[in-house]
Amino acid sequence: MRAWLVPAGCTDPGALRVVERPDPVAGPGQVLVRVRAVSLNYRDQAVARGQYMGGPVSRDLVPVSDGAGDVVSVGPGVTKLAAGARVAGTFFQPTPQGPAALGSPLDGMLSDYAVLDQDGVVTLPDGLGYEAAACLPCAGVTAWHALFGVGRPIVPGDTVLVLGTGGVSMLALQLARAAGARVVVTSSSDDKLARAQALGATDAINYTRNAQWDEDVLWVTGGRGADCVVEIGGAGTLARSFRSLARGGKVALIGFLGGPQGDTTPYPLMMKAGSVHGVFVGDRPMFEALLRAVTVNRIEPVVDRVFGFDEAAAAYAAHAAGAFGKVVIRVA
Amino acid sequence: MRAWLVPAGCTDPGALRVVERPDPVAGPGQVLVRVRAVSLNYRDQAVARGQYMGGPVSRDLVPVSDGAGDVVSVGPGVTKLAAGARVAGTFFQPTPQGPAALGSPLDGMLSDYAVLDQDGVVTLPDGLGYEAAACLPCAGVTAWHALFGVGRPIVPGDTVLVLGTGGVSMLALQLARAAGARVVVTSSSDDKLARAQALGATDAINYTRNAQWDEDVLWVTGGRGADCVVEIGGAGTLARSFRSLARGGKVALIGFLGGPQGDTTPYPLMMKAGSVHGVFVGDRPMFEALLRAVTVNRIEPVVDRVFGFDEAAAAYAAHAAGAFGKVVIRVA
Amino acid sequence: MRAWLVPAGCTDPGALRVVERPDPVAGPGQVLVRVRAVSLNYRDQAVARGQYMGGPVSRDLVPVSDGAGDVVSVGPGVTKLAAGARVAGTFFQPTPQGPAALGSPLDGMLSDYAVLDQDGVVTLPDGLGYEAAACLPCAGVTAWHALFGVGRPIVPGDTVLVLGTGGVSMLALQLARAAGARVVVTSSSDDKLARAQALGATDAINYTRNAQWDEDVLWVTGGRGADCVVEIGGAGTLARSFRSLARGGKVALIGFLGGPQGDTTPYPLMMKAGSVHGVFVGDRPMFEALLRAVTVNRIEPVVDRVFGFDEAAAAYAAHAAGAFGKVVIRVA
Amino acid sequence: MRAWLVPAGCTDPGALRVVERPDPVAGPGQVLVRVRAVSLNYRDQAVARGQYMGGPVSRDLVPVSDGAGDVVSVGPGVTKLAAGARVAGTFFQPTPQGPAALGSPLDGMLSDYAVLDQDGVVTLPDGLGYEAAACLPCAGVTAWHALFGVGRPIVPGDTVLVLGTGGVSMLALQLARAAGARVVVTSSSDDKLARAQALGATDAINYTRNAQWDEDVLWVTGGRGADCVVEIGGAGTLARSFRSLARGGKVALIGFLGGPQGDTTPYPLMMKAGSVHGVFVGDRPMFEALLRAVTVNRIEPVVDRVFGFDEAAAAYAAHAAGAFGKVVIRVA
Repeated sequence: MRAWLVPAGCTDPGALRVVERPDPVAGPGQVLVRVRAVSLNYRDQAVARGQYMGGPVSRDLVPVSDGAGDVVSVGPGVTKLAAGARVAGTFFQPTPQGPAALGSPLDGMLSDYAVLDQDGVVTLPDGLGYEAAACLPCAGVTAWHALFGVGRPIVPGDTVLVLGTGGVSMLALQLARAAGARVVVTSSSDDKLARAQALGATDAINYTRNAQWDEDVLWVTGGRGADCVVEIGGAGTLARSFRSLARGGKVALIGFLGGPQGDTTPYPLMMKAGSVHGVFVGDRPMFEALLRAVTVNRIEPVVDRVFGFDEAAAAYAAHAAGAFGKVVIRVA
Repeated sequence: MRAWLVPAGCTDPGALRVVERPDPVAGPGQVLVRVRAVSLNYRDQAVARGQYMGGPVSRDLVPVSDGAGDVVSVGPGVTKLAAGARVAGTFFQPTPQGPAALGSPLDGMLSDYAVLDQDGVVTLPDGLGYEAAACLPCAGVTAWHALFGVGRPIVPGDTVLVLGTGGVSMLALQLARAAGARVVVTSSSDDKLARAQALGATDAINYTRNAQWDEDVLWVTGGRGADCVVEIGGAGTLARSFRSLARGGKVALIGFLGGPQGDTTPYPLMMKAGSVHGVFVGDRPMFEALLRAVTVNRIEPVVDRVFGFDEAAAAYAAHAAGAFGKVVIRVA
Repeated sequence: MRAWLVPAGCTDPGALRVVERPDPVAGPGQVLVRVRAVSLNYRDQAVARGQYMGGPVSRDLVPVSDGAGDVVSVGPGVTKLAAGARVAGTFFQPTPQGPAALGSPLDGMLSDYAVLDQDGVVTLPDGLGYEAAACLPCAGVTAWHALFGVGRPIVPGDTVLVLGTGGVSMLALQLARAAGARVVVTSSSDDKLARAQALGATDAINYTRNAQWDEDVLWVTGGRGADCVVEIGGAGTLARSFRSLARGGKVALIGFLGGPQGDTTPYPLMMKAGSVHGVFVGDRPMFEALLRAVTVNRIEPVVDRVFGFDEAAAAYAAHAAGAFGKVVIRVA
Repeated sequence: MRAWLVPAGCTDPGALRVVERPDPVAGPGQVLVRVRAVSLNYRDQAVARGQYMGGPVSRDLVPVSDGAGDVVSVGPGVTKLAAGARVAGTFFQPTPQGPAALGSPLDGMLSDYAVLDQDGVVTLPDGLGYEAAACLPCAGVTAWHALFGVGRPIVPGDTVLVLGTGGVSMLALQLARAAGARVVVTSSSDDKLARAQALGATDAINYTRNAQWDEDVLWVTGGRGADCVVEIGGAGTLARSFRSLARGGKVALIGFLGGPQGDTTPYPLMMKAGSVHGVFVGDRPMFEALLRAVTVNRIEPVVDRVFGFDEAAAAYAAHAAGAFGKVVIRVA
């Protein structure tokens, strides 16, 4: 089979290379998946750049955590799935040492086949395509976790603030709208804001026009503030996220795109009874709940562009340049 | 002013009569409201029939708990509202003896003016009309409470079962759809089911065709069952509601239209970790959250028919005959 | 090894017999446990009487769900445990078909050795003896679940009502006291009530002196009622449990000792915003939390009497006669 | 009556002075309280030092938020209390402009009499003395809120970490122990640690011997960490509090004794699914729950020393010097 590799020591996504490997075989309790599509996450970029978990990968690693495909065979003792099942992998895979993530430290999904634990896949609902499904394991589950899995779940009429228009943010937008929330989006691009509004965003803030975007959040909510901030931006934005909060609101702490510098003091939470919750993807029941939500609400994850298997380098570059929603690589 | 009265000892809504009374005056901490519209609830029927809380009313009582209108003047010490405010009354009013409900034991809203506590009204959002607002204090808050105020709040992809197509059920349908839930509705009328589907119901069950409608609920949910049952039917339906539940699901116990007879044993809850929650309207913060939800999702409560002030008897009759959604009386 | 069997078709605990069987061997992912002690639950009685899940057992079955002992060997692929580990089995064992309970339908623990899944045991804290540990898998986890796993968790100052003085009730008493709650116990025996008070019960009600024991619960709580009822009694007591509730209180529905007859209407919950929650033992994280609670608070489960392995029939009889707390059988 | 005043512009507790004022009178909805005892909080120090909310007080202010005493008369319209009631004031008082705190911006309790709203007092249980009760409105409610009012409530077997041995910390220790938790206390004083252990602290850490006290917390909990940190220390300790957390644990953010400087990045929360919650005292239902807990568990708040009314300056000094538990001033 074909497989992309992040070579040991790699610090540049341009250095990824494709190799031929023997087709893998499902061991006890495992399933062999014909991968159809994968999607990229910021974490995949960090792994390829040697900036994840303290440095470059120490062995050749198949990258990318998120993928979907078909079960083509099952190993001994597999009772929950059979060949022909349409599945997506879960971000965290069960291992004897506990849960570990695909794409680092475990081999990921950017290859023709992947071997996963039978408890490390979810069955796809009819009507959800592979490319759409490949957008969900990390970004979708993270967005779900932020909205419904920490603090008070979002209910209709709440205000959700999403920072930027990347993969997690656009899924959070879609899920929050499905949940009946008002959604405020920030971006530096009027074009992206217009596309977010076409997806249902109720309010759009271009922070290049007002660096004090927290004031805008308060303004568009009539002074009430946001019940939930999907905080993807990191230290560069955290202080403003805190100031954007409604009384009793929550910040879901997801990423650190802006780096860990900046004013991060959580003391503004005190007077408004706010909270901050660490969110790092989520568990399998969250994925299953997400799939129900996607089905009932016919949510189609926003895909900026689909690349071919051979175009992985271009896909990484497009993703790094700031995609609107997700970047997908079609495998087969 | 004009006021309808349920005469002391009344056991028939046809015996309600309209009288002239002096215009009331707002006392300390109170506001005087020019009532514009009210809506009827099952409880108003029970009061008029002498079947509420142990028997007929013992004094002439202005009926109807739910109404909306304009503040025309405020009493001494009122700081939170001013004349001109558009408001709805809350079902429970603060009194020195604790919360008490409008329409019994307190005088209700079916009169030209009503005096309410400044903490016993909520301000209406722009764009919400008086007739729509008058549908919310009891039926809307009850539906909100059932979905979001007891047990696990409903999230997108959940299944909500509503029994029948009355006021609470249709508001629960609209709110559950706004929350991204799948909604199953039961009725004996194909016409009403079709109207419910037009409002967004995903599944419709005519229980005259299959008395075992719990089986249908399991069928349409692929065997999973309902995460929430808005149980308006009472003892006649409770056993089937329990059987309709998903693992970990909840039954919001609201009404007793079917009377308190029948199989009510909650033991089926044991094996599926289900729960039952008593819901009797709700509090003011729930009303405020409901108003935010109604605004963001542009929910227009379903009104079966609007009657004139003089047509109160006809309104009671239409409501008793099984209205689809709410029955409204326009006051001014 | 020696093993007790409930013979196929058995309807009388006196018909249990002991047999010799080959020592079992741990398969892949399994551990072989040298059983040291087991304890009896009401469910074990029902199984032996042919009254569980629709009738007598259809094959010879090793009875008793709850036991503790030592891991003596582990099968292939076991990474989480090693020989020498002190463990208790979890009530629900993982199986390819999903969770299934020890003692029915799976063989139980009343034998010299038992083979359990590596995820079907918990490690015992130092200082917790085998006999004490054997009291926990069903009765302890059930009590934990009732107090802390459904509805609002019990906090200091809450009132917990436990019905009777059996295994679940006495563990609920001990845990509720550890949690700082006031605990009201009912019994028909002044002697048992005195022993419950010695364990910390704050109030004792002999229901033979006042059949309206719900009135007593309200009385001793100054009219406030119970925040939690550990409802072991069933239909015979449910109506009074509802009347005993505080506003917003919860009933944990556990057993049906009194049979499913009687007034079970949950409508009294409506006006006081109460809830009923089905509780059927609980999951592994609850067991682990329970073990931490037992350790920190040095809880010693109340054991009415310890029987020898050969005295199983006498143990069943003593348990059926109404033990105070748990009945234990020492295996080795 | 006698009243202590923080003079306008005051920056030194030594500048407080006592004056004679006319006895106040209860207005509509108010009660007149004969103050018996008050206690000091860090916030009272900040007010007297001109370091609270942006600077010195702008008018002569009666200081101290927390006090208890007897209702001696009630104003018109008071229905909930009568003369003779034993009460404590709530930290937040209802005002027409919304809740406001005693001791700033409202006049506080360090005077012979205080006028409070009838909804701004709680009734004391029998057996709770005035000095004990005076310890609760701010410090006790804050501790309660941290343990039981944000995130997952503490249950038996949890680990609670309290920083230092001041008023909030010792009440948190007592409440957490009443709730069956393991409690780890830090201090620079072996003597204070010994006293904390006498109150039930299970583990004591002298951070002058190991500045990396987070390592000690992990050590004494067998690597598991704390389920709750009562974070009174502020930026100087926040980074270590985050490192002390168990997976899924919570930090209750209460004070900023160490000043707002230092490493406050919340990113360590991400990988362990931790959370931070702003806690600023709490509401009246929390106070009532606290009083039930104090009663059932016979909690006697730890009072370092009781001063006479004339010794206010000495009381402030003793409190500032680092009291063990609370500093009380007896008024009458």
